[in-house]
Amino acid sequence: MKVGFIGLGVMGAPMARHLLAAGHELALWARRPQAAAFVAEGVPVCATPAALAARSEVVITMVTASADVEALAFGAHGLAEGFSPGAVHVDMSTIAPASARMLAARYAERGVGWVDAPVSGGAQGAHEASLAIMAGAEAATLERVRPLLAVLGRRIVHIGPPGAGQVAKACNQMIMVSTIQACAEAVRLAAVHGVDVAAVRSALMGGSAGSRVLEVMGQRMVERDFGAGIEARLHHKDFALLMDEAARLGAPLPVAAQVWQQLNALMGAGWGREDTSSLLRVLEGGRG
Amino acid sequence: MKVGFIGLGVMGAPMARHLLAAGHELALWARRPQAAAFVAEGVPVCATPAALAARSEVVITMVTASADVEALAFGAHGLAEGFSPGAVHVDMSTIAPASARMLAARYAERGVGWVDAPVSGGAQGAHEASLAIMAGAEAATLERVRPLLAVLGRRIVHIGPPGAGQVAKACNQMIMVSTIQACAEAVRLAAVHGVDVAAVRSALMGGSAGSRVLEVMGQRMVERDFGAGIEARLHHKDFALLMDEAARLGAPLPVAAQVWQQLNALMGAGWGREDTSSLLRVLEGGRG
Repeated sequence: MKVGFIGLGVMGAPMARHLLAAGHELALWARRPQAAAFVAEGVPVCATPAALAARSEVVITMVTASADVEALAFGAHGLAEGFSPGAVHVDMSTIAPASARMLAARYAERGVGWVDAPVSGGAQGAHEASLAIMAGAEAATLERVRPLLAVLGRRIVHIGPPGAGQVAKACNQMIMVSTIQACAEAVRLAAVHGVDVAAVRSALMGGSAGSRVLEVMGQRMVERDFGAGIEARLHHKDFALLMDEAARLGAPLPVAAQVWQQLNALMGAGWGREDTSSLLRVLEGGRG
Repeated sequence: MKVGFIGLGVMGAPMARHLLAAGHELALWARRPQAAAFVAEGVPVCATPAALAARSEVVITMVTASADVEALAFGAHGLAEGFSPGAVHVDMSTIAPASARMLAARYAERGVGWVDAPVSGGAQGAHEASLAIMAGAEAATLERVRPLLAVLGRRIVHIGPPGAGQVAKACNQMIMVSTIQACAEAVRLAAVHGVDVAAVRSALMGGSAGSRVLEVMGQRMVERDFGAGIEARLHHKDFALLMDEAARLGAPLPVAAQVWQQLNALMGAGWGREDTSSLLRVLEGGRG
């Protein structure tokens, strides 16, 4: 398939590589030098998003924020200027559900399809092509791009119409980071009691408190290895979006609100580029 | 082994039955009529905890609160009056770590052993003898009673000295109920967005937000089946204990504190005997 790709970051670069390896006709638009490695292999780089759209059946974007996706789609020389009717924009970034719905509606007026397909699984999932993909789209549109998504992820769930994928992603982030905070509080409580935190984590795994977070982030807390993993600043960004949505919808999220404040403290301490298991250090308040 | 058992509640009754089936010489002390079924099978019921202790190598207690265990151990006609040196009190209730440490110290003066062995796995785990057991004890004392614990649970982890098992249990409850609340907030957010909550739960299982809670309680929320499971009032009791300990130790637990308030609201709504997944209904504020 003729696929355009925008967003060669820590997630996007390995994803683009999987599409190339699977035999798709890849083209790029990129502002940053990450494209060089692809250019060396003969992948064309277009001058504008519009030019990329004009030569693509599907364009995949993997960028940071709602504003980025909106500018790429409907800004000057944006994708919308280049797409032919029947083309599809698959946005795999994490953005506001309302933004995804608005873009889908504007594209629909032009006969262009939309899929919001945010992912869970992080850089490791992108490298191993094992991402979990939460799709918001009309069913027929999703079926057209499913072969591409299957190259990138292991599990593709059609949540509902445009925007629904982003709602699921918001739920994922909210549960994940709240669980990280709960594990941090448990580790802190065990530590102030003078109890071996590694033994506590081990006892809790596999029981009613067991989770992927306790397994992975819990181990980072036990080893005090805060360097690797997911950059906390990205979760901080997700929570800003989430709490804004909750305010707009009149939906109280008391624990998420508290986690957001802890993430604010984490950012204030300068740990935004370290793993979110640094929430443990916020609780320690500098007392180690 | 000559085993005494006190606490034939929803957890204790199947546990006592497993000990009997494993061939141990069981005796009881009970205020309530649950003992009748055991009496019919020839199990003796003693007149006081002291009388039970006098004929037992090990006494297991499975009751509700710190005060209950303290009264059974050192109240009038309590276990301490009957135990011979070398006997062991194994308390499997969920009580305050400080209470467990105090009891262990008082028993040690008399040459009587102590194990705090709270469990995770609920009524189902008690029935299936698949409980996870978190033990706080001197290593030699734990080894003496390990054959009994192995009859009741699948996983026995020695966390540390007396009290450490209760610390691990507190951590377990804190993580579990906080995760239930996080899942409730996610389900609520998806619902106010008009998104299919069953699809969201399914997409999130197995990913970075995956947990035993999302699997079990998440399903109860999707099905709006709040009747079965763990009675929320027991979690409410656990959190009162937890927040009291945190205050005493100067350990801030911001998310646990928020969860506690939600549990207060749940109790106020009269849902204390229903499952803790009722936290979803607290968020709905009567709007359904």
